[in-house]
Amino acid sequence: MFKIDLNSDIGESFGNYTIGNDEGIMPFITAANAACGFHAGDPMVMDKVARLAKENNVALGAHPGYPDLMGFGRRKMNLSYDEVKNYVKYQIGALGAFAKTYGLKLHHVAPHGAMGNQCQNDEQISNAIIDAVLDYDPELIIYYCAGAVLGEIAEDRGLRTCCEIFADRAYMDDLSLVPRKMEGAMITDEDLAIRRCIRMVKEGKVTSINGKELDIKGETLCVHGDGAKALLFVQKIRQAFTDEGITIQTF
Amino acid sequence: MFKIDLNSDIGESFGNYTIGNDEGIMPFITAANAACGFHAGDPMVMDKVARLAKENNVALGAHPGYPDLMGFGRRKMNLSYDEVKNYVKYQIGALGAFAKTYGLKLHHVAPHGAMGNQCQNDEQISNAIIDAVLDYDPELIIYYCAGAVLGEIAEDRGLRTCCEIFADRAYMDDLSLVPRKMEGAMITDEDLAIRRCIRMVKEGKVTSINGKELDIKGETLCVHGDGAKALLFVQKIRQAFTDEGITIQTF
Amino acid sequence: MFKIDLNSDIGESFGNYTIGNDEGIMPFITAANAACGFHAGDPMVMDKVARLAKENNVALGAHPGYPDLMGFGRRKMNLSYDEVKNYVKYQIGALGAFAKTYGLKLHHVAPHGAMGNQCQNDEQISNAIIDAVLDYDPELIIYYCAGAVLGEIAEDRGLRTCCEIFADRAYMDDLSLVPRKMEGAMITDEDLAIRRCIRMVKEGKVTSINGKELDIKGETLCVHGDGAKALLFVQKIRQAFTDEGITIQTF
Amino acid sequence: MFKIDLNSDIGESFGNYTIGNDEGIMPFITAANAACGFHAGDPMVMDKVARLAKENNVALGAHPGYPDLMGFGRRKMNLSYDEVKNYVKYQIGALGAFAKTYGLKLHHVAPHGAMGNQCQNDEQISNAIIDAVLDYDPELIIYYCAGAVLGEIAEDRGLRTCCEIFADRAYMDDLSLVPRKMEGAMITDEDLAIRRCIRMVKEGKVTSINGKELDIKGETLCVHGDGAKALLFVQKIRQAFTDEGITIQTF
Repeated sequence: MFKIDLNSDIGESFGNYTIGNDEGIMPFITAANAACGFHAGDPMVMDKVARLAKENNVALGAHPGYPDLMGFGRRKMNLSYDEVKNYVKYQIGALGAFAKTYGLKLHHVAPHGAMGNQCQNDEQISNAIIDAVLDYDPELIIYYCAGAVLGEIAEDRGLRTCCEIFADRAYMDDLSLVPRKMEGAMITDEDLAIRRCIRMVKEGKVTSINGKELDIKGETLCVHGDGAKALLFVQKIRQAFTDEGITIQTF
Repeated sequence: MFKIDLNSDIGESFGNYTIGNDEGIMPFITAANAACGFHAGDPMVMDKVARLAKENNVALGAHPGYPDLMGFGRRKMNLSYDEVKNYVKYQIGALGAFAKTYGLKLHHVAPHGAMGNQCQNDEQISNAIIDAVLDYDPELIIYYCAGAVLGEIAEDRGLRTCCEIFADRAYMDDLSLVPRKMEGAMITDEDLAIRRCIRMVKEGKVTSINGKELDIKGETLCVHGDGAKALLFVQKIRQAFTDEGITIQTF
Repeated sequence: MFKIDLNSDIGESFGNYTIGNDEGIMPFITAANAACGFHAGDPMVMDKVARLAKENNVALGAHPGYPDLMGFGRRKMNLSYDEVKNYVKYQIGALGAFAKTYGLKLHHVAPHGAMGNQCQNDEQISNAIIDAVLDYDPELIIYYCAGAVLGEIAEDRGLRTCCEIFADRAYMDDLSLVPRKMEGAMITDEDLAIRRCIRMVKEGKVTSINGKELDIKGETLCVHGDGAKALLFVQKIRQAFTDEGITIQTF
Repeated sequence: MFKIDLNSDIGESFGNYTIGNDEGIMPFITAANAACGFHAGDPMVMDKVARLAKENNVALGAHPGYPDLMGFGRRKMNLSYDEVKNYVKYQIGALGAFAKTYGLKLHHVAPHGAMGNQCQNDEQISNAIIDAVLDYDPELIIYYCAGAVLGEIAEDRGLRTCCEIFADRAYMDDLSLVPRKMEGAMITDEDLAIRRCIRMVKEGKVTSINGKELDIKGETLCVHGDGAKALLFVQKIRQAFTDEGITIQTF
């Protein structure tokens, strides 16, 4: 009776610029987080992403970010509650129009980059995102990183949530990700990474970088499609999940 | 049994920059064409515009434009059919999210600036806009300038349309506006402007700059709120319509 | 033998959007801080500003900001040292091309908005700006707010500096400006404001909001041209400087 | 005594987005056309490009484009003479600041994309570019496509010019490139392409798609660095030039 959703960031191309391999990864995931034109993505890309979601039966979600294309939404910006709320709402609405075109309904919202990182601890930003979602469609599911205050607040405020885990990243004792520059941040051994994922899904447990046993809800796993190696890993972990009796399905 | 809709371009401010007087004009109009962030407008402005539309019981429409903030969407850009369709769809969707917030449904779509001008003769652009509307919501009404091919095609393709007239502009024999640099382009005599409007609404006729009698459907009149003089004119023409038994109401 | 430079932020218009009154204020100032297209300004505006500087014999300086037009450069962004350095260098270079057109040489650099505020305490940002200036033209003068670490570092690194004071703002004990939301932040009494300025210039002293006597170098005074009242104040304070034997001249 | 310059479009990456292989192609060219932040490129990229130009002893030129990142500057925009002049001047100035950093002086200006295409016939745009160059630095060389009115006007107005030829493209009778959608537009046979180039350089002749013999000045050849195949072709054509006694050097 175990289940896992596989999500990936999608539609990060812009105009003549390409990032990722949307066609390549789509057949292997169950949820797509689509960039919405602020940190990445443009209307042409969003149209294609919505079409690919339809064709591959993938749940389409919004991946709103800061209005910082030059920084790919990865640079913290000091925005007000109203700014975050309205920027997120704008992006969700824009993506929603492309979903509608293909007979889809948006499924979830997963904040991107710096905005997503700030949701780990920032209640104001979390509430701004949640209010945007409540205004637009209270059926939307909030995808949040394990340990993020965004998840707690979303649940308190009546939204459905889905807890995201990472295969290739180590966790701190508070469930935040070990910063990339710290030693041990990346789980480079693929088999170990897969065993950790299976344990997060089946037992709801993960061992922190300090050796502490943590509770974690493995509801959706973030996967990547850039490069042949990433695509192979997705297929490998899908096989492992299947072998372990874990059903791969949209949350 | 005569009726007229009064529309105005709204929400053209951006960040710290202000254009127009949205609060001032809103009480006097029945339809607002809201900029959607491409040629003007931003999510903060769009939220305010949607709120003002709700408060003033004004029909909220999208005023999509080219992605050219520096040129205010007034510079012709050579876009493909798909680009126009997706850019328009994106903008409508984004505005729709703010409409939803205030319990509103979008009422119409009126292309802005260079895109609007090109709809006078360009079938490809007209079809791109119409397809965006059909994909998003076939109930949306197309606001088009008298004589524009956009209106004809929209009707042929099953959309409701609303023909826009101008009080202060003279018409060529093909119902296009006399270019501003030509002599006689502007109707500067307010009383004459008002008489022309009343005739367009009641008789469906206007005299071209060459003295030719033209058929015209005066269904919505474009008014402006910038400056005290413009606001006074709106009030004056409202009074004239009322005196003539023309009901001012949303199309 | 007392002297004061009068500077103003100029060229903050963008496309169809207008901020400020560049023509109005130019005859009354000795240094213009021109926006360079990131937080405000565009190439058309910059050309006009350079021409006005030439016509009014005003020293032309760059007013670089963060790449955030929607936030007018007033929102803190988390940029790296290299990003700040290259963004500033780009903006200075762009403005320099317009200066050259009118036979001018750039005179100074004054960081704008959030970038300027961060120069109060942030050594990395200050060094990034200074390195951009050293790479482009070590003759450029750094305009900094009284108390800012930017001024200290610039002097240590061999650049000429000019300390900016404000007529209408109260000071904290560390020479930073009293935040606008604190009571007493604004000096609203014009005569008091002028007396404070004269004292800063002649005695190099100002009384902080807590009553403490502080050393301050009154080398350039920031003035504004928005609105009739602001323009009148500039003329009033110019008269007061003249009456006090303080020469108004470019630093 | 034959010479050829090898130029390539460089610095077309933006933020997190990569286009081209700047490090790969730089050792094989003698002139780099660097994007300047409007249609592509950003200050970080421009800094890197200037550094690479210095390290590889490549002449650094500006590759200004329309303010249309989403369209990569390839979409015609209806700009005024002043807009083109100021947009080009802004971009040249910005790039010049990075050149200065590495002790370089800008060498040339080559208009990009739609702007470049319009220079084939449009005198107003050509003059706007030329005036920007004259204002900034009359020593800059205008790189123009064979047959372009830009070249003629630039010479008439006293600028040095350099005529660009293409290895893989067929020519119309007026020296314009055969549009890509027409049959025969691309010269796919590498040996034929190389023989055509050598003839253009040594004899100043090329055969049009209609079999007409045309005069052409082969002064600079446009080469590309995207992909292993393109890089190999550059090395192959360099070898062919050398074998034919054609010196590869900056114009």
